[in-house]
Amino acid sequence: MRSWLRSVKNKGVKYVRHFIIDCDTAEDDIMSLFMLLRYGISVEGITIVEGNISFEQEVNNALWALEFIGKDIPVYLGSQRPIIKSYRTVENVHGKGGIGDKVLKPSKLKPSNKHAVDAIIELADRFAGELEFLAISPLTNLALAYLKDKGIAEKIKKVWVMGGTIYGRGNITPVAEYNIWVDPDAAKIVFNSGMDITMVSWDLITNYTVNEEWEEIKKMKTKLSEFYIDIYTHYRNYAMTKQKMKGNPHPDLITTAIAVDKSVATKIERQYVDVENCDCLTRGMTVIDYLGILGKEPNVEVVYEINREKFINMLYYLLS
Amino acid sequence: MRSWLRSVKNKGVKYVRHFIIDCDTAEDDIMSLFMLLRYGISVEGITIVEGNISFEQEVNNALWALEFIGKDIPVYLGSQRPIIKSYRTVENVHGKGGIGDKVLKPSKLKPSNKHAVDAIIELADRFAGELEFLAISPLTNLALAYLKDKGIAEKIKKVWVMGGTIYGRGNITPVAEYNIWVDPDAAKIVFNSGMDITMVSWDLITNYTVNEEWEEIKKMKTKLSEFYIDIYTHYRNYAMTKQKMKGNPHPDLITTAIAVDKSVATKIERQYVDVENCDCLTRGMTVIDYLGILGKEPNVEVVYEINREKFINMLYYLLS
Amino acid sequence: MRSWLRSVKNKGVKYVRHFIIDCDTAEDDIMSLFMLLRYGISVEGITIVEGNISFEQEVNNALWALEFIGKDIPVYLGSQRPIIKSYRTVENVHGKGGIGDKVLKPSKLKPSNKHAVDAIIELADRFAGELEFLAISPLTNLALAYLKDKGIAEKIKKVWVMGGTIYGRGNITPVAEYNIWVDPDAAKIVFNSGMDITMVSWDLITNYTVNEEWEEIKKMKTKLSEFYIDIYTHYRNYAMTKQKMKGNPHPDLITTAIAVDKSVATKIERQYVDVENCDCLTRGMTVIDYLGILGKEPNVEVVYEINREKFINMLYYLLS
Amino acid sequence: MRSWLRSVKNKGVKYVRHFIIDCDTAEDDIMSLFMLLRYGISVEGITIVEGNISFEQEVNNALWALEFIGKDIPVYLGSQRPIIKSYRTVENVHGKGGIGDKVLKPSKLKPSNKHAVDAIIELADRFAGELEFLAISPLTNLALAYLKDKGIAEKIKKVWVMGGTIYGRGNITPVAEYNIWVDPDAAKIVFNSGMDITMVSWDLITNYTVNEEWEEIKKMKTKLSEFYIDIYTHYRNYAMTKQKMKGNPHPDLITTAIAVDKSVATKIERQYVDVENCDCLTRGMTVIDYLGILGKEPNVEVVYEINREKFINMLYYLLS
Repeated sequence: MRSWLRSVKNKGVKYVRHFIIDCDTAEDDIMSLFMLLRYGISVEGITIVEGNISFEQEVNNALWALEFIGKDIPVYLGSQRPIIKSYRTVENVHGKGGIGDKVLKPSKLKPSNKHAVDAIIELADRFAGELEFLAISPLTNLALAYLKDKGIAEKIKKVWVMGGTIYGRGNITPVAEYNIWVDPDAAKIVFNSGMDITMVSWDLITNYTVNEEWEEIKKMKTKLSEFYIDIYTHYRNYAMTKQKMKGNPHPDLITTAIAVDKSVATKIERQYVDVENCDCLTRGMTVIDYLGILGKEPNVEVVYEINREKFINMLYYLLS
Repeated sequence: MRSWLRSVKNKGVKYVRHFIIDCDTAEDDIMSLFMLLRYGISVEGITIVEGNISFEQEVNNALWALEFIGKDIPVYLGSQRPIIKSYRTVENVHGKGGIGDKVLKPSKLKPSNKHAVDAIIELADRFAGELEFLAISPLTNLALAYLKDKGIAEKIKKVWVMGGTIYGRGNITPVAEYNIWVDPDAAKIVFNSGMDITMVSWDLITNYTVNEEWEEIKKMKTKLSEFYIDIYTHYRNYAMTKQKMKGNPHPDLITTAIAVDKSVATKIERQYVDVENCDCLTRGMTVIDYLGILGKEPNVEVVYEINREKFINMLYYLLS
Repeated sequence: MRSWLRSVKNKGVKYVRHFIIDCDTAEDDIMSLFMLLRYGISVEGITIVEGNISFEQEVNNALWALEFIGKDIPVYLGSQRPIIKSYRTVENVHGKGGIGDKVLKPSKLKPSNKHAVDAIIELADRFAGELEFLAISPLTNLALAYLKDKGIAEKIKKVWVMGGTIYGRGNITPVAEYNIWVDPDAAKIVFNSGMDITMVSWDLITNYTVNEEWEEIKKMKTKLSEFYIDIYTHYRNYAMTKQKMKGNPHPDLITTAIAVDKSVATKIERQYVDVENCDCLTRGMTVIDYLGILGKEPNVEVVYEINREKFINMLYYLLS
Repeated sequence: MRSWLRSVKNKGVKYVRHFIIDCDTAEDDIMSLFMLLRYGISVEGITIVEGNISFEQEVNNALWALEFIGKDIPVYLGSQRPIIKSYRTVENVHGKGGIGDKVLKPSKLKPSNKHAVDAIIELADRFAGELEFLAISPLTNLALAYLKDKGIAEKIKKVWVMGGTIYGRGNITPVAEYNIWVDPDAAKIVFNSGMDITMVSWDLITNYTVNEEWEEIKKMKTKLSEFYIDIYTHYRNYAMTKQKMKGNPHPDLITTAIAVDKSVATKIERQYVDVENCDCLTRGMTVIDYLGILGKEPNVEVVYEINREKFINMLYYLLS
């Protein structure tokens, strides 16, 4: 299986891109990791944060996924709770194991002893000006790293965020998306830190679900395609029955695809985005100052349209 | 000028519709009143509430407008402040006088001595099951009437609300529309009162501005068309320069057009809508539970599309 | 029994004092009404508001109490809910009937058809400059009256408030007293209305409970003393077992005693007092700006010490 | 000057106590450090946090104080801002330099390169079960250390907190004390972490100011007494003119005295204490659940009375 990696990694690439991927490891996090690797990106570390399922199972899933593809990337344990707020996991969405109801453990791999916050600070230092942070998860780890060392805001080249809503259509509350809702304080810290952020929102990606392609993928019969069908079945069922979607959504993987190839995003606007962090009806909502009413400098590249065909092709390439 | 009213009023109408129109009287409120009358609706009272400009000037404008068209409808003075919150008027938007920078006074007409809250309760009683309330303004008066007499929730047939946003694109804050923002507590009370509400949002009506029609209207040379050009010039300039619009918007008049002829709204969904009333970034935002996450019964007919042609025709008819 | 009233009423009094008493009628409200009457005060109306027990039972208790002493004072129905917040009744404190677990109904008397809000406004007008408002209850009625007619702030001579805490020792939450907690928005409106307020706090009156006097009162064997023992037994038990008090407290009756004879309060400070009305841990707490940090004019006479002997003597006089 | 230290340090002490002192270094922080040393406590580190004055000057003051007494204790730089909230420094209280208006720099000493958060975690590990944390400052550093490693809650033997109010009499707002107000989120995290906390509140220590002793101290003519008069003059003037106090208060030093000798606190109650962390009127207030209404386990030893004589004697001993 490693062969599909060998073929693309660094081949003809003038420079290697360095990523941290921050996960609350469910099915779409795993596939995002695989996509980074498939496209030859050097994943310097996987940082784990509270979110979708139990922290322990998130760690297990990351290690198990590495074992599955035969890679040994450091897995750094990060925050196990939002900075201030209480939250809840969403096994109802992703299954008990985060990849359906199976609960998996890795046989051999172990996480690093270094804390995710320190790993982020050290990697930002080692790859200053080059490090990219793929946050497909609540932003607690990145916020805590920033609180410890403000200097990372300048060293990190880009933060790719799966989170928030652009039209107030959420998934965990009527108007809030899960990742931001879990730790709105962390999100507020990161969004106001000066880091260069690209945000891919929940209500955008719901327009680009995998629909009839599901059957195509079933027919591919590759190791990865079978793996894909296996780990996404629970999520697909949930999305189609409870969230009125046409297929299974790919919040993390679309964000990753944009991180890999920004041209997947066909409409982007630079806007000031803040986060509602009060304990109220709209907790965790991203607030987009589309008219510049607040008089703040734009801080986020907000994605408004996606080239669906390009994304689907990248998914097929990944699974092939 | 009264002739255009005579011709339509009650002619061949099997039943007369009874309305209260609640105003923070600027240009679009005045034209909304005229539209109700033009279409033969029996306006039982005009209730005034805090909002766009100084309360005193709002009252003056209502009386002056009545004088202009030669009608003597009771004008009831209502609340001069939001229930709890502080707010600000928006003379920058509508001009010092609310119809531009001219500050007008009526020569003869006087407001009623009855308080708007009592007028609403009494009219709801007199026209029980028939009264319609056109709220193109903060909802303070209606909320206070409801707090005094819960029974009005069943007696009022319909509340037409110009307010809120459906996609989180506001005008007074990034996500909040002015009417709801001024008194979010009042809005929360009304939205959760059981009244039958139809809501026309700010971010919807911005798609249906009067653009090139402005020049057409200029050429009409009727008393009303000249009046229209006169009182909307300030607002049009503001909208086109500060709010990136193609022409002047008609939040109140479109709501009124839908109230007069519901088929102007071509897409409506019944949804549960609540209001963020905390003193926070999202104060006054309407929260639409599009997935039914909160498990509440739908309480609002939310308008999602408008037949622009029909609205423009109604405007022309009004001005002709 | 009417004889004890006859003897004091207006005897040698140069002027009659005019009161409204606002009740969420439990045992201490009833005794407060009786004290006003015992001291010859002209009670112009009893206004009922949401609070201790069901609104219906509060009304019943007021009418039943009037029947008991053979007086026919108008009972005006007011607000049945806080302006914005949700709340809960406290039958656990006062018993199902508010005077213990007995649930009583009056045989003959009926409440007025006039709404409490209108009654307050009209009485403030009729007794302009003389009317005193005894609020031993949430402040919803007074706030709604003020929202309808700001002019009452100048016409009402004094508002005597049982409510709040002076040292952050509450009864319904750690720091909030029940009356203010039920409708903190109403309290905020009233406290910032410019009315002349004297505030008697919960954590003050807990120092002045009826302790060994209970046995003395039992021995009095008057109609009123037996009535007293009967309706206070539940409350006394609650206070002594659940609130660590030495006897039964008299929040309303002490406030009334001070209203009748201000010298019962032996230490008073004029301070700026505001109310926390957020939906948070400290909802309904009274905030005393003891150092003038907020730079606001003092708006409340805050009572800090009471002449216990004088109060007890007034109680004995009432029961004799 | 080191002689006064030599004489007490470890003499006849069976075990050495290990402390971290967390400072936003103004005059009372410096004297607290000196008291710990005077009483033979092993100060393992000084951690600096945002607070009274500019962070840079806080660091300078700590180093300069160490230079003054000829000690070389590691100074660890910690958080320079509250976790979420904005705050302000209070040079008006402590002078531009935090010890009056002189702005001092150390000549030789430098801070450690290790971050305060890591120092706290490592020292908690090294002195597990023995380490005491003296927090005379906002609780940001301790909260961030806890967020990074929950294990410290069990390793730290005791947290001595100067902060909060017991009767709602604050200094930065009417009801909030500065340290807790600066970072109420941090305080909420620490108070709910399971650490063993003793809290010395602002409104307690205002009853135990240095009054006529000021003149006594002036006459002592020791190096430390002259130092004391020098650095406290600004603070004393502020307290006596702006805060209506009889002399200069010692919030930090009284807390330190209690940490050194717990019998200085003559009345202590174990209670559940929480922190209001909303952005509202009562931000940063400590909420004491004196009746157990919230049903939580007591988490704080709240000090209610102090042996003034004992404290004054400790102060004299320190200055002698």
